[in-house]
Amino acid sequence: MTDARAVVLASGGLDSTVTAAIAKADGCELFFLTIDYGQRHAVEVQRARQVAAALGVGGHVVLSIELRAIGGSALTDEIDVPKDREGAARGTGIPVTYVPGRNLIFLSLAAAHAEVVGASRIYFGANVLDYSGYPDCRPEFIRAFEAAANIGTKAGVEGRSLSVRAPLLTMTKADIIRTGLQLGAPLHLTHSCYDPVGSLACGRCDSCLIRREGFTKAGVVDPIQYALS
Amino acid sequence: MTDARAVVLASGGLDSTVTAAIAKADGCELFFLTIDYGQRHAVEVQRARQVAAALGVGGHVVLSIELRAIGGSALTDEIDVPKDREGAARGTGIPVTYVPGRNLIFLSLAAAHAEVVGASRIYFGANVLDYSGYPDCRPEFIRAFEAAANIGTKAGVEGRSLSVRAPLLTMTKADIIRTGLQLGAPLHLTHSCYDPVGSLACGRCDSCLIRREGFTKAGVVDPIQYALS
Repeated sequence: MTDARAVVLASGGLDSTVTAAIAKADGCELFFLTIDYGQRHAVEVQRARQVAAALGVGGHVVLSIELRAIGGSALTDEIDVPKDREGAARGTGIPVTYVPGRNLIFLSLAAAHAEVVGASRIYFGANVLDYSGYPDCRPEFIRAFEAAANIGTKAGVEGRSLSVRAPLLTMTKADIIRTGLQLGAPLHLTHSCYDPVGSLACGRCDSCLIRREGFTKAGVVDPIQYALS
Repeated sequence: MTDARAVVLASGGLDSTVTAAIAKADGCELFFLTIDYGQRHAVEVQRARQVAAALGVGGHVVLSIELRAIGGSALTDEIDVPKDREGAARGTGIPVTYVPGRNLIFLSLAAAHAEVVGASRIYFGANVLDYSGYPDCRPEFIRAFEAAANIGTKAGVEGRSLSVRAPLLTMTKADIIRTGLQLGAPLHLTHSCYDPVGSLACGRCDSCLIRREGFTKAGVVDPIQYALS
């Protein structure tokens, strides 16, 4: 246990919610940072607020940034989100849903916020297994970012080092779900879909398929509703 | 000479404008990225547009991000900007105008934009002499950031390395001004003030004092108007 403050990059998704529950179990006071980056599904921000309330955070900042102006991704551009892809197809190359520099940008904002609220830790839900194509989910990226942030911030210069924690990094989706359930994470509030139908998850994009497989492997029922059910 | 594309972090200020002129002299096609971060002087964004037009850029993206939500600086918060400080007072410690993580955030956005437009270089106007208190202007930060960006982006993974250039890093303000004049940089369009009076520079904040001293030392007349003249 610790009384450290932790900034949690909270998207309202399954992974970031389980990550927040882990930070809380580590004894941290949670400061949620949600980045509203012009993604096509604003429902994420609402879910992040509900998760924050459920976990009892010390603060929650929702920061708007129009990454759409930069372009280059199916999540912010008008590129079609792939549907019904088998695992093998999902595993090759860098997916079209990759947002250029997203984790670099998000971690930079988290580092700035950590400095302001006096947090010594950033928790984020990066995972290498299901998203092996995302270069900014790799452990070597996280360590390189941590080094840059410690050199480039007042906190780092003054000797308060900032640690970046990605506790889900090597977990399978089923393990993430089991961990979330053990810690009482509000999984029923989470949202993972790349291409929701109204407020319902599509059930067919890569993210939905990975989530559904994870619940199946964990042997528990997914508490959210899907448009295809 | 090169035909490389370069993203230039363009604030409409003196330093970034001279930096852009250097990038152009290096033979790069310029892609301006201006971050509108809720600073108190929106005049910066207008000046950046005028500088872009004067230099003839290949593209100009103005990206809004409400860093005010994060807080912690005189440039975005309601902290008073210091006035009429002598050089010695300006040189000590980290100034209140330091924006937590600003260059980390700005370079991250530039790296994302570089990936989208296919740029292999980022130019930015960091300077260690006049702003020694800013940890994110130090050369070791720039190198650490470059490493993180190359590990964390698709471009880096695919072998297109990104180089971060800060050509003004060790130049005095007088040298920056002389370089700008030699390269025909539109210094008359630039804006450096932390606390403008209408559209005029105040002439008394640290940034104005450094600029005015620089023009005096360079032996040329500053082409902009000050509120105190």
